[in-house]
Amino acid sequence: MRQEWNGFQGTKWTDEVDVRGFIQDNYTAYDGCECFLEGPTEATQKLWGILQGLQKEERAKGGVLDMETEIVSGLTAYGAAYIAEGTKDLERVVGLQTDKPLKRAFMPYGGIKMAEEACTTYGYKPSEKLHEIFTEYHKTHNDGVFDAYTKQMKSVRHNHILTGLPDTYGRGRIVGDYRRVALYGVDFLIEKKKQDLALHDGGGVMTDDVIRLREEVSMQIKSLQGLKKMAAIYGYDISAPAKNAREAVQWLYFGYLGAIKTQNGAAMSVGRISTFLDIYIQRDLEAGTLTESEAQELIDHLVMKFRMVKFARIPSYNQLFSGDPIWATLEMAGLGMDGRSMVTKNDFRFLHTLENMGPSPEPNLTVLYSSRLPEGFKRYASKISVTTSSIQYENDDVMRPIWGDDYSICCCVSATQTGKEMQFFGARANLAKCLTYAISGGVDAKTREQCGPAYRPIEGDVVKYDEFMPRFMDMMEWLAGVYVNTLNVIHYMHDKYFYEAAELALIDTDVRRTFATGIAGFSHVVDSISAIKYAKVNIIRDETGFPLSFKTEGDFPRYGNDDDRADEIAVWLLKTFMNMIRRHHTYRNSEPTTSILTITSNVVYGKYTSNMPDGRPAGAPLAPGANPSYGAEKSGLLASLNSVAKLPYEYALDGISNTQTISPSTLGHTQDEQVETLVRVMDGYFDRGAHHLNVNVFGVDKLIDAMEHPEKEEYANFTIRVSGYAVKFIDLTKEQQLDVIARQAHGKM
Amino acid sequence: MRQEWNGFQGTKWTDEVDVRGFIQDNYTAYDGCECFLEGPTEATQKLWGILQGLQKEERAKGGVLDMETEIVSGLTAYGAAYIAEGTKDLERVVGLQTDKPLKRAFMPYGGIKMAEEACTTYGYKPSEKLHEIFTEYHKTHNDGVFDAYTKQMKSVRHNHILTGLPDTYGRGRIVGDYRRVALYGVDFLIEKKKQDLALHDGGGVMTDDVIRLREEVSMQIKSLQGLKKMAAIYGYDISAPAKNAREAVQWLYFGYLGAIKTQNGAAMSVGRISTFLDIYIQRDLEAGTLTESEAQELIDHLVMKFRMVKFARIPSYNQLFSGDPIWATLEMAGLGMDGRSMVTKNDFRFLHTLENMGPSPEPNLTVLYSSRLPEGFKRYASKISVTTSSIQYENDDVMRPIWGDDYSICCCVSATQTGKEMQFFGARANLAKCLTYAISGGVDAKTREQCGPAYRPIEGDVVKYDEFMPRFMDMMEWLAGVYVNTLNVIHYMHDKYFYEAAELALIDTDVRRTFATGIAGFSHVVDSISAIKYAKVNIIRDETGFPLSFKTEGDFPRYGNDDDRADEIAVWLLKTFMNMIRRHHTYRNSEPTTSILTITSNVVYGKYTSNMPDGRPAGAPLAPGANPSYGAEKSGLLASLNSVAKLPYEYALDGISNTQTISPSTLGHTQDEQVETLVRVMDGYFDRGAHHLNVNVFGVDKLIDAMEHPEKEEYANFTIRVSGYAVKFIDLTKEQQLDVIARQAHGKM
Repeated sequence: MRQEWNGFQGTKWTDEVDVRGFIQDNYTAYDGCECFLEGPTEATQKLWGILQGLQKEERAKGGVLDMETEIVSGLTAYGAAYIAEGTKDLERVVGLQTDKPLKRAFMPYGGIKMAEEACTTYGYKPSEKLHEIFTEYHKTHNDGVFDAYTKQMKSVRHNHILTGLPDTYGRGRIVGDYRRVALYGVDFLIEKKKQDLALHDGGGVMTDDVIRLREEVSMQIKSLQGLKKMAAIYGYDISAPAKNAREAVQWLYFGYLGAIKTQNGAAMSVGRISTFLDIYIQRDLEAGTLTESEAQELIDHLVMKFRMVKFARIPSYNQLFSGDPIWATLEMAGLGMDGRSMVTKNDFRFLHTLENMGPSPEPNLTVLYSSRLPEGFKRYASKISVTTSSIQYENDDVMRPIWGDDYSICCCVSATQTGKEMQFFGARANLAKCLTYAISGGVDAKTREQCGPAYRPIEGDVVKYDEFMPRFMDMMEWLAGVYVNTLNVIHYMHDKYFYEAAELALIDTDVRRTFATGIAGFSHVVDSISAIKYAKVNIIRDETGFPLSFKTEGDFPRYGNDDDRADEIAVWLLKTFMNMIRRHHTYRNSEPTTSILTITSNVVYGKYTSNMPDGRPAGAPLAPGANPSYGAEKSGLLASLNSVAKLPYEYALDGISNTQTISPSTLGHTQDEQVETLVRVMDGYFDRGAHHLNVNVFGVDKLIDAMEHPEKEEYANFTIRVSGYAVKFIDLTKEQQLDVIARQAHGKM
Repeated sequence: MRQEWNGFQGTKWTDEVDVRGFIQDNYTAYDGCECFLEGPTEATQKLWGILQGLQKEERAKGGVLDMETEIVSGLTAYGAAYIAEGTKDLERVVGLQTDKPLKRAFMPYGGIKMAEEACTTYGYKPSEKLHEIFTEYHKTHNDGVFDAYTKQMKSVRHNHILTGLPDTYGRGRIVGDYRRVALYGVDFLIEKKKQDLALHDGGGVMTDDVIRLREEVSMQIKSLQGLKKMAAIYGYDISAPAKNAREAVQWLYFGYLGAIKTQNGAAMSVGRISTFLDIYIQRDLEAGTLTESEAQELIDHLVMKFRMVKFARIPSYNQLFSGDPIWATLEMAGLGMDGRSMVTKNDFRFLHTLENMGPSPEPNLTVLYSSRLPEGFKRYASKISVTTSSIQYENDDVMRPIWGDDYSICCCVSATQTGKEMQFFGARANLAKCLTYAISGGVDAKTREQCGPAYRPIEGDVVKYDEFMPRFMDMMEWLAGVYVNTLNVIHYMHDKYFYEAAELALIDTDVRRTFATGIAGFSHVVDSISAIKYAKVNIIRDETGFPLSFKTEGDFPRYGNDDDRADEIAVWLLKTFMNMIRRHHTYRNSEPTTSILTITSNVVYGKYTSNMPDGRPAGAPLAPGANPSYGAEKSGLLASLNSVAKLPYEYALDGISNTQTISPSTLGHTQDEQVETLVRVMDGYFDRGAHHLNVNVFGVDKLIDAMEHPEKEEYANFTIRVSGYAVKFIDLTKEQQLDVIARQAHGKM
């Protein structure tokens, strides 16, 4: 045993990279209450005060405090930097992305045009030298993608039936196992990667796959060497394992810092670090070398660093992902494969940061929920939801059988085994639009282009179920094919031009790859099919005969009311689309998955989607994620949750996002009552096999007031959960705010 | 028919790219004598005079006249440049690689280290800015290769059992069909490539191969657009087809110029352009718009441009490929598939450049020989060989059945179908060294490293045939595997980091790819096996027991004497090695081939090869190509040629190089006699199915005098054929000169 590991149990994890084994051998479950928690230290208050000032300044400057234009971001592109002058000794965790806090780095490898547009959008002038380098000499991911796109791919993109594709930004969704840096030190990790390189010679057959992997592992090794240099700039030698909690937090953060210095993926998740770090803290607490207050300070400072992560984005990106999110998703709780609760004191500490430093969208705190979690923790999490609306819940009972007990959420709701897996992120297909194509014969209502294949349209004045269904099936088949092929191009080029060496260096060489797709407009498709089946959908044609609108006569069941007639359509839709996706070749033989998750792209998607048989008017936002349509839920919160819970997670392994807002008074009259009710609601919901819940507890009045008076101090950090992440409400565009306000706020159970 | 094509016959070639069809429909065979040829014009004499001055200056400066250090070479990196001030109007063909004649471009994509070493070797200081770009931002081919190499690959490279691999220089050997630019104009070619891009969508399945190809075709289209811009810099619009001979020559040269501005492959061949250009010249001659003198001037000036091509090279490269060759290989003659001679007047004009402007190693003039060629042409070619020793001959009768009648030689001796095919160049495996490994059990005599696998060595004091052969087979099997895998890595990375867009833009999208390997030390292996089989090979071990040398008792048959006992071993060796190569997976499913061709690398290879059972001492140069060993030929020229002719071309489709030197007096007393005898020797040799012959006609005395008195005017352009190319004798290193002198100069038939 290395001396850094004194006091740790187990041996299996010592000569192989096996963080999960280390955790299982060493964590101390905690089933008590939050009573042990400590408030913020003086250092925390001072630093957080400075940071809040900077955040205010940032907002005043239109959303960006400062931007780099001359230096390409990289592990060692900058010297040591701190939150402010003189704070070096206050910061228990050091390391910034650039040379100044909140300053956004210049990252051209994904696409020089985007990197430059981000600068000019905020009034910065990008470097001419870097322009020359990344146009004359170095090709970027974006250029590569457009070289390989087919005409059809460009068309589906232009017509927004596929949107939000990661061809103009980093795909993200790769969670390096940053804990490895702390547990093993970088030298051990380099040694292991060198062994992997020697072993991965294709058994003497150098196919393209073997060659590609060998080059990648070599790049990973260089990246680990770079990580050591980066830490050395801050005065740390991370060659060896961390010796104590403070080093463990610092080492781990350096690992993450390496990722965010080299990549600007949409989601740059932190992973499942809470239980892991608790082991170090617990050892120091027991040795008397750390107090609880110091422990909380460490976690507060680490969280503060996660709150500071910034990327330079372009307007079209901000439209899709509103409010400057970076998805520093971080998990707590869950059960082990052996049935033990994995809740530790540290899970409380992470939640407690929302009290010590107020609500915040980042890190994207995620509770891996089970009704079998200790009551004390469930209640504390529920209390934090009631008071901050800042956290989300995912069902550990449905994920654990598939991903084990050491998975991380790599974006909003998508699980990946930590250090074993990566995801090829795939944005979404707009199935609502696909439904209108099935009726129009592939012609887009907005552009009037023949975007889809010229299949037979619906003729006559009524959309008849028997005529509609085969057309819809054909059109979905087509869309699934184009979709997978488009993603194949994107991921090939991402690997070629913008490989995530810093993150993949902290993941097993034999990485399992999932290939994520996604569905947008889910509820509108379900309700529209229901309308076609159960009511009479008349087509209103324009002067050219185009089926521009619908007049639906009679009532029909709607998704979100626990009505099997509609909910069965929802299940059918998910299974059918997923099976269509599965038929196709996926890049690097990755495993296809899908999600019902739109983030805030539901608004942009809605803009490009015409009238639908369910009554949704052209241009209106789609319901987010797997949520029922606005106004469709007529039977209360529980009926709505029951509908969503019927969707089989096994067919949507990338996640099923459900965002609900509940008036405080619906939950109870006192905070205690509210907390208790929410726990019971979640127990019931998740025990039915539902996957995810974003919990907001507030009334619509508060939202309207915040929209109208964003200057009020109380709204400065007012955080809400939207589809898949949390956001400061006042950072949303007016359009997004109106969408959030329009959503159902459940006033009855 | 486009008006540029007025007077041309046939229609099939007009709406598809089909240069061969155009040639077959339009060429005018010529079976007369050289009597029509014209001497150099005043412009030619003036320009050639200037160029000879520059060449002298270049030699005086140590081999390099000038080098670029600040600008990365590219299609439009420079403005228009001419041979000298005021020569613009004298130059019938314009266009230089850089901004000055003989100035070498800076080409970092293959490897920044090499590009910089080339500069510093000749006293130039490479740009710091470009250093930063190609180390910090842009990875190069060389870096990629070394990231993916296995330990074993590095070892075989370090121990020189594989040498000359194109991992530190461009692989070359891709002959763009430059004639297409003239016949169709660039707009048509762009249109066709766009059509190809639309068609190559994998039938809806985006595999890596399809994506890679799509990106490549997009790069080709951009390259064609760049070619137009490059021509525009010189005041030419090459969008449309060439209208006359002068434009045809100029358009074609622009196509080639695009290649040599963007790539520095070892071999940058010109291809089979002679018959093609004759069609344009013939049309103009018949229309009275061109005189024979003007026609010759065009060809002289085109050839002058080929004589000016230069690349920046590093010392280790120059050791392998001595004398600054670039293999601007250019073919003449051959027969059509229909049996017609394809000899045109233009073939005479190209050979005549060696008279009008004196001998020159470049372009690498190659006669596609058949005894059925018109006597007048055979005699003229023979005369040029007797007087200049500057040309080579390849057997059209063995190549035509395999490659058709429009193939080009892409380096020394390797045929590829013009515009239909490319070659992955693969250097050579040292089978001589492999033989010593079979005896030592894989331990290298020089480094004493276990480079090969630790198979059982030969024990005892005698190399017994029955013990030796299974060991040699095992060792060759191993070497063939490492060899193919190493090349797979190289070509994967070359495509990734240094793709030949300018050349492949002029080749069909569905390109056929051959995967060339090569054999070095051929004759020594054959003779050593013969010694083991027919004589007694005693092992002389050093103090460690290592089998360092051999003492062979008794006589044994040697390859090169028309003795079937030895020659059958030669055939067996070729077939066996080729079949071993064929067993392995090759990059992009290319078709494996091999060659028996060493260029001048036989000297370097020999340096690293220890003593052999055939009596060749450690460090001595290997015999070049398929040549019999020095001193082994005891039965005269014809017996030697007969031995080589027995090697089956079908097993060495990349070529079988044979270089012979014949004393003039052996051929006859008068030049007429010599010319006539040489024709008969070649008729006989090639009718036996031999593949290739480098013909030198001089005595050893001349070589010795040239080595000792390089300053003599008569030796300034003294050109000789070495294995696979021609070289100015005085440009060879002393070592190479001594090697050439040591070779057999046949004094008897």
